Amino acid sequence: MNDPKIAFLFDLDGTLIDSVYQHVLAWREALEEVGMALSAWRIHRRVGMSGGLIATALQRETGRPVSVETGQRLQELHSKAYLKHVNEIRPLPGARDLLALLTKQRIPWTIATSSSLERAQHALKLLGVGKNIPVVTRDDVSRGKPDPDLFFKAAKNLHVDIGDCVVVGDSVWDLLAARRAKALGVGLLSGGYGEDELIKAGAYRVYQDLAELLRYLDEVGVRIAS
Amino acid sequence: MNDPKIAFLFDLDGTLIDSVYQHVLAWREALEEVGMALSAWRIHRRVGMSGGLIATALQRETGRPVSVETGQRLQELHSKAYLKHVNEIRPLPGARDLLALLTKQRIPWTIATSSSLERAQHALKLLGVGKNIPVVTRDDVSRGKPDPDLFFKAAKNLHVDIGDCVVVGDSVWDLLAARRAKALGVGLLSGGYGEDELIKAGAYRVYQDLAELLRYLDEVGVRIAS
Repeated sequence: MNDPKIAFLFDLDGTLIDSVYQHVLAWREALEEVGMALSAWRIHRRVGMSGGLIATALQRETGRPVSVETGQRLQELHSKAYLKHVNEIRPLPGARDLLALLTKQRIPWTIATSSSLERAQHALKLLGVGKNIPVVTRDDVSRGKPDPDLFFKAAKNLHVDIGDCVVVGDSVWDLLAARRAKALGVGLLSGGYGEDELIKAGAYRVYQDLAELLRYLDEVGVRIAS
Repeated sequence: MNDPKIAFLFDLDGTLIDSVYQHVLAWREALEEVGMALSAWRIHRRVGMSGGLIATALQRETGRPVSVETGQRLQELHSKAYLKHVNEIRPLPGARDLLALLTKQRIPWTIATSSSLERAQHALKLLGVGKNIPVVTRDDVSRGKPDPDLFFKAAKNLHVDIGDCVVVGDSVWDLLAARRAKALGVGLLSGGYGEDELIKAGAYRVYQDLAELLRYLDEVGVRIAS
């Protein structure tokens, strides 16, 4: 049997599913519809943040105030634009294999995402994540990443201590939220950030994707029972 | 008058125009049509490379040989998929202002891109680049970046020594080609690479985008005549 003192909390977009680039272009389209222009790379660095913080970042980058109404409309336009491309979304390499291995090894795991349940549902189906996994979405907490609330709620759902959790994500917002929650943060390059950005944000290790993490589970302290 | 001993060679995609994320998804679509799967972030790190080297990288990443015919078909599918999104493409912040300033200051500049003339033409129109600018595309040389041929040809077109040229680009392929050409490489974050990747590839400085470079031209040795 495995040491019960380890559990995994996964981010969704850019970690389990290959959707970050579609999110970037969906935000670009939404922003343009409300008359705001922002370069794709700047949007890229905000994906995974809570919508409220994205609005604050937008105000700074564009120099224009974003009203609550515009913020709400942006979220709706983004969801609509993203859902047009949802059939292009694929699981990232290693995602299904790693989740299956953890399940087989009785290592607790779940998913904590800043996305709404509506946007996440398609991904959960794609990954074959069943209703027995207590997934946490933006709808379950009052603040998204980089606040630690999503990870606190996910650990609670698994009945594990947050300090025993490994948070796996592709963005600096996952890693900042992990630090604030006192969990161990592990970064992945599969969302398109540079390695250095993730290390500086506090990643204990950075792997290319979950396929690589699967081969190095010992490095994060997982004992695999044969 | 300006010291004539400085000239600028600009990359196009991710440097002057905000098109990298559209290229990534166009490659993803093209690859899927020939039955190859590659994560978006891995494609992102190849954008700006010559098509031949992309095919070699694909063989390694997917473990499948890419025939000359498949390589050719991929290029065509990519062009077709990209051109569907061409109306979403915008100039990057500072691009038009910087080009206008260099022109006004009689500092020679041109553009050197791994793209075909067909794909580049829309961007040149968007930027207002006239026929007097001796732009170099993939059609003008036998090898794209990171071979230095595009930059050699661009310097020749400007009648300047390559050693007096500042190469400005968003990808490690621009910076590697600049090193091989013995030009000064300057990196930009506007293509979505991390700063560290560009520094490691040999960038003398890294700026967010051309709007930032415009404010720091003194750092690369440009004297502005008032």
